[in-house]
Amino acid sequence: MPNSSLDATATKTVAFDLPSYLNRHTKSVNSALDHFLPKATAKPQTIHKAMRYSLFAGGKRMRPVLCIAAAEACGGDVNDALPLACAVECIHTYSLIHDDLPAMDDDDYRRGRLTSHKVFGEGIAILAGDALLTQAFEIVARSKVRKRYAHQDLIIELAQASGSLQLIAGQVADLEGEGRKTSTNQLRYIHERKTSALLCCSARLGGMSADCSLSQLKALTDFGYHVGLAFQVIDDILDVTQTSEQLGKTAGKDTAAQKATYPSIVGLEKSKRIAENLTKRAFAALKPLRGKATALKSLADFLLKRDR
Amino acid sequence: MPNSSLDATATKTVAFDLPSYLNRHTKSVNSALDHFLPKATAKPQTIHKAMRYSLFAGGKRMRPVLCIAAAEACGGDVNDALPLACAVECIHTYSLIHDDLPAMDDDDYRRGRLTSHKVFGEGIAILAGDALLTQAFEIVARSKVRKRYAHQDLIIELAQASGSLQLIAGQVADLEGEGRKTSTNQLRYIHERKTSALLCCSARLGGMSADCSLSQLKALTDFGYHVGLAFQVIDDILDVTQTSEQLGKTAGKDTAAQKATYPSIVGLEKSKRIAENLTKRAFAALKPLRGKATALKSLADFLLKRDR
Repeated sequence: MPNSSLDATATKTVAFDLPSYLNRHTKSVNSALDHFLPKATAKPQTIHKAMRYSLFAGGKRMRPVLCIAAAEACGGDVNDALPLACAVECIHTYSLIHDDLPAMDDDDYRRGRLTSHKVFGEGIAILAGDALLTQAFEIVARSKVRKRYAHQDLIIELAQASGSLQLIAGQVADLEGEGRKTSTNQLRYIHERKTSALLCCSARLGGMSADCSLSQLKALTDFGYHVGLAFQVIDDILDVTQTSEQLGKTAGKDTAAQKATYPSIVGLEKSKRIAENLTKRAFAALKPLRGKATALKSLADFLLKRDR
Repeated sequence: MPNSSLDATATKTVAFDLPSYLNRHTKSVNSALDHFLPKATAKPQTIHKAMRYSLFAGGKRMRPVLCIAAAEACGGDVNDALPLACAVECIHTYSLIHDDLPAMDDDDYRRGRLTSHKVFGEGIAILAGDALLTQAFEIVARSKVRKRYAHQDLIIELAQASGSLQLIAGQVADLEGEGRKTSTNQLRYIHERKTSALLCCSARLGGMSADCSLSQLKALTDFGYHVGLAFQVIDDILDVTQTSEQLGKTAGKDTAAQKATYPSIVGLEKSKRIAENLTKRAFAALKPLRGKATALKSLADFLLKRDR
């Protein structure tokens, strides 16, 4: 491990070639997703084109890579983690398609391209989201399991993280919070659900694919939770500081929608410090994984310092 | 078995107290659904209220009862079938919520009550559908399995029936068919996916909960397929012949939306004969189940003769 002191590593880049790691695993994930999804020519073509349009829109694949890195940190095999990584990405993409709809965040652009409903119409966009959500569970059910965690455990893990008490709860609270005064506690509630839940689930599923121990699972849970919160605070910061071109999606949306964000409640500088502290806590959570968590650390650091 | 001759039983009521059977199992299903769903007071309340509003809107529970009757026909226990019956009803309800949205069939009434988006707004209606879809998989994953069929098999069964090649494909083809000339073959394609897929899945999951043999599973598959087609032909007929008050939903919608239906393509009388013949074929499919399929037969007969 290049750095043993927590404080020293907290915001420094760890000596690890993350770009090539991301590049390699993004390719594996894209190729696996292509394998798991019905072909674009499968009847009815519209729905399969729409599913693939959003799934292959150039997303950063942070959740799948986190899943794979978590598996590796527990001594697991990338191939065992890949189906679960793909399932999480299907859930993430479905949630973006639905969140972008006019009835929700009403966004015309995502990842620099027109959103699903702008290309295929609202009806098909809703159905493409539904189809990706359904596909995610089929992919998990078809995955190979090892000893400690059965399909039952993996499905419950994914369903809970994506369900009405977590991911969907976050979106509901976000919708309901627009234009209202929001406390930092309420904002934390939203971020835990909208972002942390699925990031945490990605890390946990990766560990589970590697037959991780309970203490490893706990470490991944704490790590995913804090990385998820940091990720969302940084998203809020970028919404204020970057342009739409830099983000590939509409910037300044939160302010326009009168959404509470960390910068709007505690200011930009304090928000940055909060993101840094959350990242430090994510690093600290990795201690039980000892020397194997370099990729996870590097990912957390990258997410903290990203500019889009 | 009260009738051994196929032709004689085809459209006659079998000697079986279906109303009390439906009443008894509808109660069990409602109580199990109440148990499986988060409470209406769970945070965020809006989403849980919306999920429950549509789930407890007085649906006929045909799919869950079919699932239970299939389990019984294979010598199984009602309690083993109940979670799967509830999962199928969650899928059915989610598909109704999304189908009723303005971007799809744009319906204001369902089962005699305002549709979800009319009560909660489009955003929450979309999320309530998503949440019920997700919940369905969690319920299956938490169910007790027996020997022959694992959670993996049950999840794949449900995901395929609800996915982009079946249930969702049917809705896509239905959307795309509006205002276009449709052949009976294309109409059959839509009905197989929009209705048969999930009815067939209900019967199969019931059988699987009872550890059914492959020949029993094949019988249930054929039965569900033909009952599903008959069900949809009758739905088309009722849309023309009944009033909105009788149906509890907007009548004449298919004609207004220039949707192809059996009555619009082959006429009302021929449509009725087609529904009868499909029901006969559903009866014939039950032969391998011998004397145990009385409830299934009675259900098929009831669906043929229903007036709403």
